[in-house]
Amino acid sequence: MGKMQTTDCTIGIDLGGTKTRLGVVDFLGNVLEQITIPTNVDDGYDAIFADLITVIKKFRNTPNSNIKALGVAVAGQVEAVSGLIKFAPNLYWHDVPFGQMLHDATQLPVVIANDVRSATYGELCFGAGKGLEDIICLFIGTGIGGGIVSKGSLLTGHNNSAGEVGHMVLSIGGLPCTCGNRGCWETLAGGWAISKNTQTAVRKDPQAAKQIILNCGGKIDQITPHHLFDAVKDGDLYATSLMKPIEESLIAGSTTLINAFNPESLILGGGIIEGAPWLVSTIEQGVRLQALKSATEKLSVVRAQHLKNAAVIGIAAMAMNKIRLTVWQ
Amino acid sequence: MGKMQTTDCTIGIDLGGTKTRLGVVDFLGNVLEQITIPTNVDDGYDAIFADLITVIKKFRNTPNSNIKALGVAVAGQVEAVSGLIKFAPNLYWHDVPFGQMLHDATQLPVVIANDVRSATYGELCFGAGKGLEDIICLFIGTGIGGGIVSKGSLLTGHNNSAGEVGHMVLSIGGLPCTCGNRGCWETLAGGWAISKNTQTAVRKDPQAAKQIILNCGGKIDQITPHHLFDAVKDGDLYATSLMKPIEESLIAGSTTLINAFNPESLILGGGIIEGAPWLVSTIEQGVRLQALKSATEKLSVVRAQHLKNAAVIGIAAMAMNKIRLTVWQ
Repeated sequence: MGKMQTTDCTIGIDLGGTKTRLGVVDFLGNVLEQITIPTNVDDGYDAIFADLITVIKKFRNTPNSNIKALGVAVAGQVEAVSGLIKFAPNLYWHDVPFGQMLHDATQLPVVIANDVRSATYGELCFGAGKGLEDIICLFIGTGIGGGIVSKGSLLTGHNNSAGEVGHMVLSIGGLPCTCGNRGCWETLAGGWAISKNTQTAVRKDPQAAKQIILNCGGKIDQITPHHLFDAVKDGDLYATSLMKPIEESLIAGSTTLINAFNPESLILGGGIIEGAPWLVSTIEQGVRLQALKSATEKLSVVRAQHLKNAAVIGIAAMAMNKIRLTVWQ
Repeated sequence: MGKMQTTDCTIGIDLGGTKTRLGVVDFLGNVLEQITIPTNVDDGYDAIFADLITVIKKFRNTPNSNIKALGVAVAGQVEAVSGLIKFAPNLYWHDVPFGQMLHDATQLPVVIANDVRSATYGELCFGAGKGLEDIICLFIGTGIGGGIVSKGSLLTGHNNSAGEVGHMVLSIGGLPCTCGNRGCWETLAGGWAISKNTQTAVRKDPQAAKQIILNCGGKIDQITPHHLFDAVKDGDLYATSLMKPIEESLIAGSTTLINAFNPESLILGGGIIEGAPWLVSTIEQGVRLQALKSATEKLSVVRAQHLKNAAVIGIAAMAMNKIRLTVWQ
């Protein structure tokens, strides 16, 4: 393999449960080309694989493209070395050797990583964490996931499962979680729980909740966090009162992470933060009161820089590292 | 400096609030000589410094001793590079340049580190974590502290304050903590809280608590965790019922750490574990039920190997590393 050129690019793929984002990314983190396609989960992994190969070919056939590697970010557990996707709950995949399949078809070096860790790496290399060494990226969407970076390295854990911060316990014996435990952070502030808990509250007191009911068109069982956030933005007092336990848990979970890890920056992203961006300052003010002074005196709390592209950019950067390592070997 | 001999030793000092342990430790972690002296906190740091120098001189004057460096472990915040003890609450010290003072007096390389991190390093190099890469050492004593090791490196955090796991929030809006927040892990399972919470319970129902009252000689305001544990060992049902929230919180906090960090071993030490060693299996059984399968499938939960010496051995090993680095430079 020759000396790497400054025009070299990698393909980053964020393989989600409903749609897949693909981008051509250069070594400065610029997204040169981008496409989003539906993920046809029902058709199985062979069909999804074929869809990706079609786009990869198109990217490689673009004039002047110089694609050297590719990476796939996926929600779930992966084996970093072999590229095996052990379990991807959104895709219903178990033990799919996706890295090997992509390598065999493209002859490119392939990296497979967890999507939250990929997005964290994107923020670290080319986003809100650029130039920093000790960060936590917290993505609050349907679930809550975290990427932890210490001295510039992403923590993987022993079994490649570190960062499952949505299942930190914040309320012993609390509400049941999808994981089987009770009182996890997600049961208080994950998107799925905000929907469920808001629906329960609205059913209990529909009179007080009339703004939220208006926002969801009367379909209480279809209430999402955004119906709640819209009511808050309109100054609705009942909706604001429903935010209190959500805010308290976001402060408590962030305090837990800050006291345990002592990052220099807590970077907040995900659909819940995008829908209620004021939560960034709520969390910042809360942790400055509640976390240890030694852990907050040099801390910044900021919003993630890349809204939808962080995982694409991050996994592309991991793929770039892989070819750099190959060149240097 | 010449080539390091196999007989080279370092001195490890565990500077506590009531007593100080000093040991001569070889590069295999063997404690060759050991002494424990009272820490005369009221006399100030000059007097404590003089006491340490006396013992260090004695160690160095022992025939065949070959002491090359020394280390001091202390509860509190330190600056690793300068050896400044920024704040040691048990000693009432602020900004004491103890590393520089010891170096000036001995002309030896000196390392200063937090005591929990030192003890974690002792378990990592020469104890229950030997040969492992990703461990969490949890020391449950008067307070709760943790040392986190990822890929063989101790996490320090950005501001050298990582590992304050006793102040992870497990009960939002719960009992007030010494740190100013509420619902910290320590308020449920730290030694100070077990004493306080047991005293409160005993006062509420002295009839049910008669075994505990017997154990403390009727002095309810002097109840310690050991009076509770002794009643549990005797099969007392009320004492056993008071253990429930303690056990639940130990499982919940361990679950939080395991889900966030995914260690290969959770190593448990400290006075509470020594007083109630059955908690190790209680915690193990609990986390296997409550933590994520991906995080526990390769996890072991074990008791720390070095009961009182872990910090001495660990800080001595850190000092040994320092001279190795010097030799190799």
